[in-house]
Amino acid sequence: MRLLVINPNTTRSMTAKIALAARAVARSGTEIVATQPKTGPESIQGFLDIARSHHGLLEIAESHRDVDATVVACFDDTGVDALRCIMEGPVIGIGEAAFHAASLVSSRFSVVTTLARAIPGLKDNLDRYGLSRRCAGVRAADVPVLQLECDPGATEQRIATEIAAAIADDGADAIVLGCAGMADLNRRLSGRFGLPIIDGVSCAVTMAEALCAAGLSTSKAGAYAPPEMPPPALRETLLRS
Amino acid sequence: MRLLVINPNTTRSMTAKIALAARAVARSGTEIVATQPKTGPESIQGFLDIARSHHGLLEIAESHRDVDATVVACFDDTGVDALRCIMEGPVIGIGEAAFHAASLVSSRFSVVTTLARAIPGLKDNLDRYGLSRRCAGVRAADVPVLQLECDPGATEQRIATEIAAAIADDGADAIVLGCAGMADLNRRLSGRFGLPIIDGVSCAVTMAEALCAAGLSTSKAGAYAPPEMPPPALRETLLRS
Amino acid sequence: MRLLVINPNTTRSMTAKIALAARAVARSGTEIVATQPKTGPESIQGFLDIARSHHGLLEIAESHRDVDATVVACFDDTGVDALRCIMEGPVIGIGEAAFHAASLVSSRFSVVTTLARAIPGLKDNLDRYGLSRRCAGVRAADVPVLQLECDPGATEQRIATEIAAAIADDGADAIVLGCAGMADLNRRLSGRFGLPIIDGVSCAVTMAEALCAAGLSTSKAGAYAPPEMPPPALRETLLRS
Amino acid sequence: MRLLVINPNTTRSMTAKIALAARAVARSGTEIVATQPKTGPESIQGFLDIARSHHGLLEIAESHRDVDATVVACFDDTGVDALRCIMEGPVIGIGEAAFHAASLVSSRFSVVTTLARAIPGLKDNLDRYGLSRRCAGVRAADVPVLQLECDPGATEQRIATEIAAAIADDGADAIVLGCAGMADLNRRLSGRFGLPIIDGVSCAVTMAEALCAAGLSTSKAGAYAPPEMPPPALRETLLRS
Amino acid sequence: MRLLVINPNTTRSMTAKIALAARAVARSGTEIVATQPKTGPESIQGFLDIARSHHGLLEIAESHRDVDATVVACFDDTGVDALRCIMEGPVIGIGEAAFHAASLVSSRFSVVTTLARAIPGLKDNLDRYGLSRRCAGVRAADVPVLQLECDPGATEQRIATEIAAAIADDGADAIVLGCAGMADLNRRLSGRFGLPIIDGVSCAVTMAEALCAAGLSTSKAGAYAPPEMPPPALRETLLRS
Amino acid sequence: MRLLVINPNTTRSMTAKIALAARAVARSGTEIVATQPKTGPESIQGFLDIARSHHGLLEIAESHRDVDATVVACFDDTGVDALRCIMEGPVIGIGEAAFHAASLVSSRFSVVTTLARAIPGLKDNLDRYGLSRRCAGVRAADVPVLQLECDPGATEQRIATEIAAAIADDGADAIVLGCAGMADLNRRLSGRFGLPIIDGVSCAVTMAEALCAAGLSTSKAGAYAPPEMPPPALRETLLRS
Repeated sequence: MRLLVINPNTTRSMTAKIALAARAVARSGTEIVATQPKTGPESIQGFLDIARSHHGLLEIAESHRDVDATVVACFDDTGVDALRCIMEGPVIGIGEAAFHAASLVSSRFSVVTTLARAIPGLKDNLDRYGLSRRCAGVRAADVPVLQLECDPGATEQRIATEIAAAIADDGADAIVLGCAGMADLNRRLSGRFGLPIIDGVSCAVTMAEALCAAGLSTSKAGAYAPPEMPPPALRETLLRS
Repeated sequence: MRLLVINPNTTRSMTAKIALAARAVARSGTEIVATQPKTGPESIQGFLDIARSHHGLLEIAESHRDVDATVVACFDDTGVDALRCIMEGPVIGIGEAAFHAASLVSSRFSVVTTLARAIPGLKDNLDRYGLSRRCAGVRAADVPVLQLECDPGATEQRIATEIAAAIADDGADAIVLGCAGMADLNRRLSGRFGLPIIDGVSCAVTMAEALCAAGLSTSKAGAYAPPEMPPPALRETLLRS
Repeated sequence: MRLLVINPNTTRSMTAKIALAARAVARSGTEIVATQPKTGPESIQGFLDIARSHHGLLEIAESHRDVDATVVACFDDTGVDALRCIMEGPVIGIGEAAFHAASLVSSRFSVVTTLARAIPGLKDNLDRYGLSRRCAGVRAADVPVLQLECDPGATEQRIATEIAAAIADDGADAIVLGCAGMADLNRRLSGRFGLPIIDGVSCAVTMAEALCAAGLSTSKAGAYAPPEMPPPALRETLLRS
Repeated sequence: MRLLVINPNTTRSMTAKIALAARAVARSGTEIVATQPKTGPESIQGFLDIARSHHGLLEIAESHRDVDATVVACFDDTGVDALRCIMEGPVIGIGEAAFHAASLVSSRFSVVTTLARAIPGLKDNLDRYGLSRRCAGVRAADVPVLQLECDPGATEQRIATEIAAAIADDGADAIVLGCAGMADLNRRLSGRFGLPIIDGVSCAVTMAEALCAAGLSTSKAGAYAPPEMPPPALRETLLRS
Repeated sequence: MRLLVINPNTTRSMTAKIALAARAVARSGTEIVATQPKTGPESIQGFLDIARSHHGLLEIAESHRDVDATVVACFDDTGVDALRCIMEGPVIGIGEAAFHAASLVSSRFSVVTTLARAIPGLKDNLDRYGLSRRCAGVRAADVPVLQLECDPGATEQRIATEIAAAIADDGADAIVLGCAGMADLNRRLSGRFGLPIIDGVSCAVTMAEALCAAGLSTSKAGAYAPPEMPPPALRETLLRS
Repeated sequence: MRLLVINPNTTRSMTAKIALAARAVARSGTEIVATQPKTGPESIQGFLDIARSHHGLLEIAESHRDVDATVVACFDDTGVDALRCIMEGPVIGIGEAAFHAASLVSSRFSVVTTLARAIPGLKDNLDRYGLSRRCAGVRAADVPVLQLECDPGATEQRIATEIAAAIADDGADAIVLGCAGMADLNRRLSGRFGLPIIDGVSCAVTMAEALCAAGLSTSKAGAYAPPEMPPPALRETLLRS
């Protein structure tokens, strides 16, 4: 199968890191098509970046309509609902993938993300998916997304500090890493802390494969139906009135 | 004060109708600046249209930074969180305005919107605001947004049928009209049914005035802080890597 | 319009302070009628005071039936539901007004109230309105209501201490002041902390004006319908049996 | 033990019926002191009656401070929180008692009350206690409270019709009768429908006995602490200012 | 009445302690039948022990079908739902009994249990009963169940430390002791802390008596109906296919 | 990898059907080990069967400790939490797998299960996982589990009737089949109704593979840690006391 993995920001080093993480877990028969929009924000940190990313994200997705499934490699799951209306196969965000996986392998998980300003949006997502029921806390390591790219040693340490706090104070028995840019940290940190440290990219890739194997794709019978256009004559009238 | 009212779709007749509804309730000292994006969907019906509207919506807002408050005249409250990051004064969506107003004048309200495909998104919003607690039901009149513009008699009848069902079956004692295109119906229907029929445009305009009068505006201390850019040198490195 | 603002306790200095805060934000055409019950508790601190205030509150409201809207200037929103059954225009409590306003200008707000004994009742209200979804915490400054009247310097300092804790520990980006007696503090504290510090009196006054301007009033079709009396003959029989 | 059972309305026939139901289930050593306020509404149907009942309810309770426990025999649980601040022993409302009992003997229960106008208040209570989690529906038989007193045959039939609907449509396997005036119907209806039909008076009386036997009473360490008065000098100053 | 009190683990000293606590609060006419399974775990600490206890618990219950009510004296309420399908009278777990009692005598309660590994299961129960709405926190004293039996002094001190933290940090005004093995501590600790310290065994015994006195038992019309067997011929076919 | 698929009832034809469904979707490198307990109920319909199944389920799992992952092929997810304490690799129930998958491919899903008596338990599970947020309804086709085995034509028609009702009345855009015994129906019904009809067995198998590929397994740092035994000397003392 062909699996489209979109990094919805324009930072190439993140796309490369995401592609690496995706290929590391994909089945042998899965072709990972990793890409990024031509225009849009360089990183996605909060509500404004999310809205700004939609134009480029839809554009890049529409030029890859021939894939079997789509992963949106941004922890905010930006644009996932919109892509479900246009793509044929299943569409998964790495945030939701990580939350679902964490629900299956732990009793209570905490999330460690980049900046505090992203926390309300992530909590909204958790509530919307229902999975805040299983979440013990959402914490910020106070690390801008792009700093993950250029100072990995210091940022890993700050992330580890928050993980330790989540275990001690939240009672978490698993940790979700809340940024696509952390996709290279999960295995090392998991060994260090002795519990699952969950990266969304690997969860989303394997879950997309799982849905395809189970013969499932987005329902087009409800909110994800492609919007119908009004008849041309009506449009003429309305747009020129 | 200057109040920006953005119709986030490109249908001019809707902008005109929204402007009329806004001016009918605004204080004498409030100047209503009604506008619409240059590009984007002709109507907003579901998740794909929402994402497609963001580019034009941000563009039009950024060219009106000198206003005192902003109303997003789409019942899905599309882009409200993003605009809160860039506009100085308060930003209100007509959906949330109507839900808050309904909570203050009724014990349980129902929503009557256009198409069934919009219901999950509206329920997500109600949950996110917390106001699903006061909502008895979200119903669709099975009327595309643009049909409101060209066949008002028939569409009003279908909306009235759903209102009657909401009162009888949901136990609602107030009705929220779930589309900016219904902004001319609330007074007539309210008289017909003998209970509050709530239009979001008039609620959002008067609530924006209320917040300004109370000296309140969007907090820039949390999720609505404008995103900071990384230093230019870092951006150079990352984008070209 | 005539706007009735009832301080439901019998402390005159609080009524004066509330009237001042109301007039500071009201439209030029709004007449503020500020009053207080003849009998009842001197301050409202918890469930017993709330119940004790109802008799005087209903009495004073019933003698002002000719107003266009009513504000209950007690942060517990005492008697609001009952007044909605007898007053013609909209009725708003300053607690709910502040919570709704905070939901519109922040991503997560905390409440700083007077005594810890009031916290469970305020949390009940937040849950009932649905707005606990947006509330990051309810804190007590350990200041009795009447002490706000006689030692403003020391009490302001204790309130500021809790505000600082709410920002640091709850992640709040706006603060709701949880007592009508704090209505003179919001502007100074807002300047000090650099985020919205929200006073319920000014929110309730401007929201009542907003609802009136939007043509909305309490629905009388549900839980707020005035109770009907049984026919006189039946009452005779039952009461004397 | 002495168990105070207060009918918070002024209809004597209801007090008599409630006393009968209480004595039918009380332990042999329990003295039932059934009483009613001197003033207040003749029946309690909604928010206004609830507020109007508080004055007389507090008065009658304060004149019976020597009891071991208190039952408030109104399904709205009016005044229960206030009484917890002044009475020594446990205080239970018949609404909450019935909801707790129903949670212990069924998987999902429905409530059948008198008038539709009471439903939002009962749902608020269920949410506040948390027990809406176990409630499948709240229905009204469209029977005013006092009609239960004068036309028992016809009202029982309407109640039975709603019970049948709750079983068929809500999937309820137990029914809570939502009015103190229905306290004589539960055994007959339970036999007719073959599942628990739960009356709040008998639940509240036996649960009050249970709490006393277990050595439990209202915590005075939190929201139910009796409010302290400010020192007399301060009161002088404030009230005369 | 005959009241079956099952300790679902096989530790005899706990059964003795439970029987003592039960008899201390039971009515004079109530015969306490205290027993334990023949096989199963020695203490119940988490999900695996719960599942392991079911076989012995069902066996011991089925050999006592002639009782009037049943108490499951394990704070996890293990097997309560299953026993409701086979026992005639009401069945109550000591966890749910304590939570319901705490809801009736406090505004917010905290739970102090044995080991942290039990916390997620207890939170699941609280959510399921709806009573997490009233719960301020679930804490572990880090004391294995069996240590309560052999080192009571040291364990009481650790429990007291957590109680103090629950009062100070959670704002709890009542404490639920989260283990049947703590049934001898509640009165002494209650005196020490000046607020209700609630033991589930005494709550469950007196509530079972209350339900019986009120004429209530488990509904057999829903989820607690005894499962019907398929006809013998069908079983033959299916089991041998 | 070796994937253990346990049918927790003793009906062999169901194990065969489950194995078929599992092998139809498993990767080529996955060996499906399908088995069933030696003792226990013939079908699992409600709380009593669930408890009765635990002994045999634990026994069969403990004799297959060498697998890489485990699927519990009962829609009630019976014993999943207990197995997570003893098995090395991830453990998934078919109920939770189906709910998670449905959340990823639809906006609102309904569940169609066998008997009404199972509905409360399934709703408890949905609440516990948090996924009731995405569930539009749980319906029963009024078909005993074993009837699925012997009269497939008639039972499929009754299931189809409920699916049609879920689409029309609940607004569902995907359907979860609520019984392992329906694992052969999903593809045919999906074609008939034009939306995802989701079988838990195929979801659980592919999700177990996904978790393994992503390097994830049950956290042993919290509620799923294997219970430690007390030291032998202590056990001697306690068990013989």
